Amino acid sequence: MPKIRKVLVANRGEIAIRVMRTCKELGIATAAVYSEADRAALHVRTADQAFFVGPPPSRESYLVQQRIIDAAKQAGADAIHPGYGFLSENASFVRACEAAGITFIGPPASAMDAMGEKTRARANMIKAGVPVVPGTTEPIATLEEARVYAEKIGFPVMLKAAGGGGGKGMRKVERGGDFDSSWRAAKSEAMNAFGNDAVYIEKYLEKPHHVEIQVFADQYGNTIHLNERECSAQRRHQKVVEETPSPILTPEMRAKMGEVAVKAAKAVNYVGAGTVEFLVDVHRNFYFLEMNTRLQVEHPVTEWVTGLDLVAMQIRAAEGEKLALTHAPEPRGHSIEVRVYAEDPARNFMPSPGRITYLRVPGGPNVRDDSGVFPGYTVPNFYDPMISKLSVWAPTRAEAIARAQRALSEYVVKGITTNIRYLKAILAHPEFIAGDYDTSFLTREHETLLGKEDPKLTEMALLASAVHAYQRDQKRAKSLPTAAGPGGGNGGVSPWKLALRRR
Amino acid sequence: MPKIRKVLVANRGEIAIRVMRTCKELGIATAAVYSEADRAALHVRTADQAFFVGPPPSRESYLVQQRIIDAAKQAGADAIHPGYGFLSENASFVRACEAAGITFIGPPASAMDAMGEKTRARANMIKAGVPVVPGTTEPIATLEEARVYAEKIGFPVMLKAAGGGGGKGMRKVERGGDFDSSWRAAKSEAMNAFGNDAVYIEKYLEKPHHVEIQVFADQYGNTIHLNERECSAQRRHQKVVEETPSPILTPEMRAKMGEVAVKAAKAVNYVGAGTVEFLVDVHRNFYFLEMNTRLQVEHPVTEWVTGLDLVAMQIRAAEGEKLALTHAPEPRGHSIEVRVYAEDPARNFMPSPGRITYLRVPGGPNVRDDSGVFPGYTVPNFYDPMISKLSVWAPTRAEAIARAQRALSEYVVKGITTNIRYLKAILAHPEFIAGDYDTSFLTREHETLLGKEDPKLTEMALLASAVHAYQRDQKRAKSLPTAAGPGGGNGGVSPWKLALRRR
Repeated sequence: MPKIRKVLVANRGEIAIRVMRTCKELGIATAAVYSEADRAALHVRTADQAFFVGPPPSRESYLVQQRIIDAAKQAGADAIHPGYGFLSENASFVRACEAAGITFIGPPASAMDAMGEKTRARANMIKAGVPVVPGTTEPIATLEEARVYAEKIGFPVMLKAAGGGGGKGMRKVERGGDFDSSWRAAKSEAMNAFGNDAVYIEKYLEKPHHVEIQVFADQYGNTIHLNERECSAQRRHQKVVEETPSPILTPEMRAKMGEVAVKAAKAVNYVGAGTVEFLVDVHRNFYFLEMNTRLQVEHPVTEWVTGLDLVAMQIRAAEGEKLALTHAPEPRGHSIEVRVYAEDPARNFMPSPGRITYLRVPGGPNVRDDSGVFPGYTVPNFYDPMISKLSVWAPTRAEAIARAQRALSEYVVKGITTNIRYLKAILAHPEFIAGDYDTSFLTREHETLLGKEDPKLTEMALLASAVHAYQRDQKRAKSLPTAAGPGGGNGGVSPWKLALRRR
Repeated sequence: MPKIRKVLVANRGEIAIRVMRTCKELGIATAAVYSEADRAALHVRTADQAFFVGPPPSRESYLVQQRIIDAAKQAGADAIHPGYGFLSENASFVRACEAAGITFIGPPASAMDAMGEKTRARANMIKAGVPVVPGTTEPIATLEEARVYAEKIGFPVMLKAAGGGGGKGMRKVERGGDFDSSWRAAKSEAMNAFGNDAVYIEKYLEKPHHVEIQVFADQYGNTIHLNERECSAQRRHQKVVEETPSPILTPEMRAKMGEVAVKAAKAVNYVGAGTVEFLVDVHRNFYFLEMNTRLQVEHPVTEWVTGLDLVAMQIRAAEGEKLALTHAPEPRGHSIEVRVYAEDPARNFMPSPGRITYLRVPGGPNVRDDSGVFPGYTVPNFYDPMISKLSVWAPTRAEAIARAQRALSEYVVKGITTNIRYLKAILAHPEFIAGDYDTSFLTREHETLLGKEDPKLTEMALLASAVHAYQRDQKRAKSLPTAAGPGGGNGGVSPWKLALRRR
């Protein structure tokens, strides 16, 4: 397959810039696309050239397949990187690229088909021997049928739009009495949101963790996993903080989940970077949730602990290179990512678009800022209000939390409201510090997390942190190799016999 | 020894902020000192409190020992971190801290005494069995005596001020006919610069490499080295670009130089972070040059490949913690640092102080910016004009060069002139890319590096880079472990069988 010389990045904001950074490092030229609202955006300035594709909202520009393909042709791009969101999981777009003779940097359309619709994905996974949450494999036709099934698997249950994703189109039903009205509401919402009123039912797991496995495959069936990400810190099914390794995973669970994720990817002949999401219940059983057939927002934490560049790997896989890694690199140290949003937590997280009048980005050791903004930039009203993904690395989790706090304290954004204080409150919460927070954490602790700095909370956090660090040290002393062996990094081991006394 | 709760940072600019960042992560309070010229400086804003210590120049503020100690007392600081430069290698200051009951975060005064004066350091190293460049161990008293000695070891020779350091007070003598006048000039310069006209003589090595070893010791004699840094890209004996691993070191040389560096540190009962500098000649013999008894400017590259935090280690060592590492972590991947200066290369590198009207700092994967400036900040006239240390990490050297180029291309500094284009020219030079540049490189290639972008140079650089990457891949394929073993990182191995085709 010929080598890629120019990539059109069919996205905007931080992920467009993320992709262009790697292209630049690989000596690949880049072309951007932009909407009317994004004329002055950073991704436009970052690319070697840029093409106008229409007005906001996205369905009139970034989602118009033909305009994207026309731009790629005009640019002379031999490949398109879709980023995440927009057209990244759209099988018909992949086929349109193929028809136009342009390489789509991502999985084949068939893999998207197999994983895109949730009930089909479930059915495929059951066939492949991947554990799924008890529920229907097909959308249920009638209310009567649905109610009988819900009673069979037992309440609470989740109603899910078959066409949904990314946390959208989901509804919990606590008890049988609420079922009929919830069912009708779910179907009507699904129709409005996705143009498809198919709904299926799953058992609702109490206090589950969201743990996902990064997988990677070349075009020759060589498929590996690159360990997990813990993404249980979610607000309305949207991730806010992600980390790796997951504080709840044992090496055995990691190996087993990785193996299952590889099995899932192989079952659909996956190619490139993908993510298999699991729910982990209180008994540490894990169930397939869905597969994201694209680069994930939170991929930087995986890059931190593996030393790999996932975008470079995507490009090489699209070129037809063969994967030489035969298994996941042993995770080295710990990484945490927080999503910085232009939003106001105190006003129900309402987006806060506007002009950034002053910006100081954190720096120093092991801090990474993936951002799509700059001083003087006006955050538009039309798109996801995430302005930065701030990620950090440290040898241990406790140190990574301290580093993330330090980095957040350096972030200065003036002119718009951000969720920085809220993110700091999450990192300081004893439950987060203890490392055993489930997907209900942010909702359950909503009030506390929004509160002004509570001296008691701070005190508790420090205490929880110290206890946790001590326990971790005790465990490490027993279980981890000392310092570095030949060929290894420092394996996340602190250079001190008794590290982290303070936390 | 009691734990440190508050640190006064007796420095300014990026290094003061670097130290404060780690303090913050460790839960240690910080106090800054500032001169009249630094009232609005970032290190003042970063600290928990700040103390005024006098007007510029430094000898009336940052170098006034009693004012620094008074500030520490007033702050209630139990320790002082000196950074680099200023009082960091001043044994009398260390003694003054001791007398005031304040912990000096650095080596004991006796180790500074033993390494501070160059001829004494040479004598101590010879006694310890550390190879030194042929030359005198004592300053030479008379011109006659000096000329005889120079003729004995053979021209060219270097005349060095015994009180000098950091590249200052050095003069090369090419031939016997120039000796007398050079000798007189060197002595008079030494007196003016250091208040001490003692001068000694060393054999001048042709095209040497400057390779230094990071050492670290606790208070109990446990001493290790943390691998090397290649610092041959120097302009007037000032480092401009640093990297690790050194492209010229074999594993055997690394082990041997590390062993010798540890021997040097042990000979003077060293404690904390220190750097043993060596010259490596064309036959790959190495000779002790000097020891810097403090944190080095270029320490971030070591932090990148080891995963360690050297400032945290300094603080712990000062508290009396015992070092648990028994040897250097295997270097993981490659790191390069470039020093961004407010200076104008086209005007003989004249400092370019002034107001930074706009600043955009590079971001994305594996880029670290250690900076002491911010948008709106006025770079003062009185101090070293370095505004940022930009460092990057990547699995291989070729990838690290590409990443450094990418990061530099993102750096936007308006309002003042910087050396960014000059740094890019260095990284693009075929000699740098080939990895075999000696200390004469920047001087020899001065004109080329200042030139406008030369299409031929760019072409040559790409070719040299491709050849180099290919050779390296061939070597790696033979010599390196594949992918990751248990407990290890990915050891700098690319995930692809044939990586880096493009460069």
